[in-house]
Amino acid sequence: MATDARVTLAEIAAEAGVSLATVSKVLNGRTDVSASTRARLEEDLARHGYRRRNSTQRGEFVELVFPELESAWSIEVIEGVEGVVKAAGLSLVLTVSGNRHAPAEEWIEGVLRRRPVGVVMVFSDLAPPQRETLRLRGIPFAVVDPAGDPPDDVPSIGSANWSGGLMATRHLIELGHRRIAAITGPEDMMCSLARLDGYRSAMNAAGLPVDPAWERFGDFHTTGGESHTRELLALAEPPTAIFAGSDLQALGAFAAARDAGLSVPSDLSIVGYDDIPLMRSMTPPVTTVHQPLRRMGEEATRLVLRMADGEQPETLRMDLATHLVVRGSTAAPAA
Amino acid sequence: MATDARVTLAEIAAEAGVSLATVSKVLNGRTDVSASTRARLEEDLARHGYRRRNSTQRGEFVELVFPELESAWSIEVIEGVEGVVKAAGLSLVLTVSGNRHAPAEEWIEGVLRRRPVGVVMVFSDLAPPQRETLRLRGIPFAVVDPAGDPPDDVPSIGSANWSGGLMATRHLIELGHRRIAAITGPEDMMCSLARLDGYRSAMNAAGLPVDPAWERFGDFHTTGGESHTRELLALAEPPTAIFAGSDLQALGAFAAARDAGLSVPSDLSIVGYDDIPLMRSMTPPVTTVHQPLRRMGEEATRLVLRMADGEQPETLRMDLATHLVVRGSTAAPAA
Repeated sequence: MATDARVTLAEIAAEAGVSLATVSKVLNGRTDVSASTRARLEEDLARHGYRRRNSTQRGEFVELVFPELESAWSIEVIEGVEGVVKAAGLSLVLTVSGNRHAPAEEWIEGVLRRRPVGVVMVFSDLAPPQRETLRLRGIPFAVVDPAGDPPDDVPSIGSANWSGGLMATRHLIELGHRRIAAITGPEDMMCSLARLDGYRSAMNAAGLPVDPAWERFGDFHTTGGESHTRELLALAEPPTAIFAGSDLQALGAFAAARDAGLSVPSDLSIVGYDDIPLMRSMTPPVTTVHQPLRRMGEEATRLVLRMADGEQPETLRMDLATHLVVRGSTAAPAA
Repeated sequence: MATDARVTLAEIAAEAGVSLATVSKVLNGRTDVSASTRARLEEDLARHGYRRRNSTQRGEFVELVFPELESAWSIEVIEGVEGVVKAAGLSLVLTVSGNRHAPAEEWIEGVLRRRPVGVVMVFSDLAPPQRETLRLRGIPFAVVDPAGDPPDDVPSIGSANWSGGLMATRHLIELGHRRIAAITGPEDMMCSLARLDGYRSAMNAAGLPVDPAWERFGDFHTTGGESHTRELLALAEPPTAIFAGSDLQALGAFAAARDAGLSVPSDLSIVGYDDIPLMRSMTPPVTTVHQPLRRMGEEATRLVLRMADGEQPETLRMDLATHLVVRGSTAAPAA
């Protein structure tokens, strides 16, 4: 049932000795009310039957916030979140806001107004005041984090980036490659560094030297893959294999290889990262590191729902395993 | 402000001579109340200040319903809808339900409970009772319709499928191809038939005969593109160009060509359909018919918001233009 309306807001305001505007602010999730006044008024509202209506509204949906709907892989996160949300009998609100670091400032106003059961975010972090506000309002949140390294106390589901870089490189070494380059992502993203370190560890473990010219920071887009591959192929001793750091960068590497008159995989082996669905349909199908984006969305949503039920999760940070999917873009180097 | 609570639901029920349960059903959008009782109670509720609260709740979000989040292009529709929804100061609820023909039956219960401003659907149609229920509840809806041919009275934004097929085929003819095959989508989808008819018209206009073996019904997925291309290439006189009907089918055609030892475009030209973002990053980049999926989502959302504002749109059915994007997968046939 929608509500049990027994008392006017004006009466609640009078009883609490505050203005009607203050009661209204609390109901609408505005932040310009002191925490103690808010707590007191929420108690009053609850006593008069408003609490129940509020919690009914809160029980309706989970909010998923993206910095942008980057078409390569956001849909997989959405699918994962949507499945768990639906199974819980809830709806999914999808919001695009901010940049890859945090949602925009005005977002927090909106989410307090909407009062979701919880929030799943594809951001490295929230600004500390945003985090504090959500905590104060009792809205649990978790981060789906393929990119960053959020603070210890931020619940987050990531994936094993270092292992991914290691597996990709080890695969190329096992095929017989010795001159292997790595194009990773932007230097200010933890996942870029982790994947690059995985590459270095695999090279070191095999006793293979790493030419500094073989290590490249890209942009995770095709343009970065293409320009870096072009430069790599112009080296005096070009690599015979490239760990491309993302599927889009792998596509860029394909284009540069073709422009250089090289065939993949016979002249150049290329490994992607992410395993977005189209990679299996490429010609040749792309060998890539599978990042479990759908499962990351599922786990983050489950975490949020558990917290909404009052559970205190033992582990706030979880990395799901990545694995290598060997397809047709890698082969032994030409003799 | 959230509400103006002046009277209890019990009082409204007593005044109307119905049970409290009936009032509650009306508030909760349940369908087991007669239309006349519902209308009368909604009036009573409005008079006592409930209407305003209801309209506030209704004013919060637009619902977007998909049969599945097919990764190739659903994200573009989502982006289009999200942009218009946000610009209107609303939130987006994303729901996955049903199959490509209509949402599941239980969906209608949910949407009545959620009471969105309006609904944008990626379905050919609603079942007539679903349509009637939404109309009765004053929830406007529009269909983003890349596939079907909804009834005249269903507001829908499609795209020019016939023109798309015509342009793709005309482009191949202008390059000098004479033996051109078409793989279209499933036979029960209007867009498949429209694209195929566009192909036929272009062939006829150029005075080119169409071998019945060149016309294929696929599945819009890579598998269909691959198997049909394999069969086409095995013909005594194989085609020199294929209009592949979708980008995924074009990728399947690439794979079959490669297996047959043919180069694209020098041995075989291939045209896709949809222009999903990765097509420009393929090697070679794929010539394809651009379907304005983002704009279709935008226009459908604008239509819904106009209807929610009480406007009666003059045109219920609108097809946005498609256009050909010429890239590297088409060339003159080998001499």
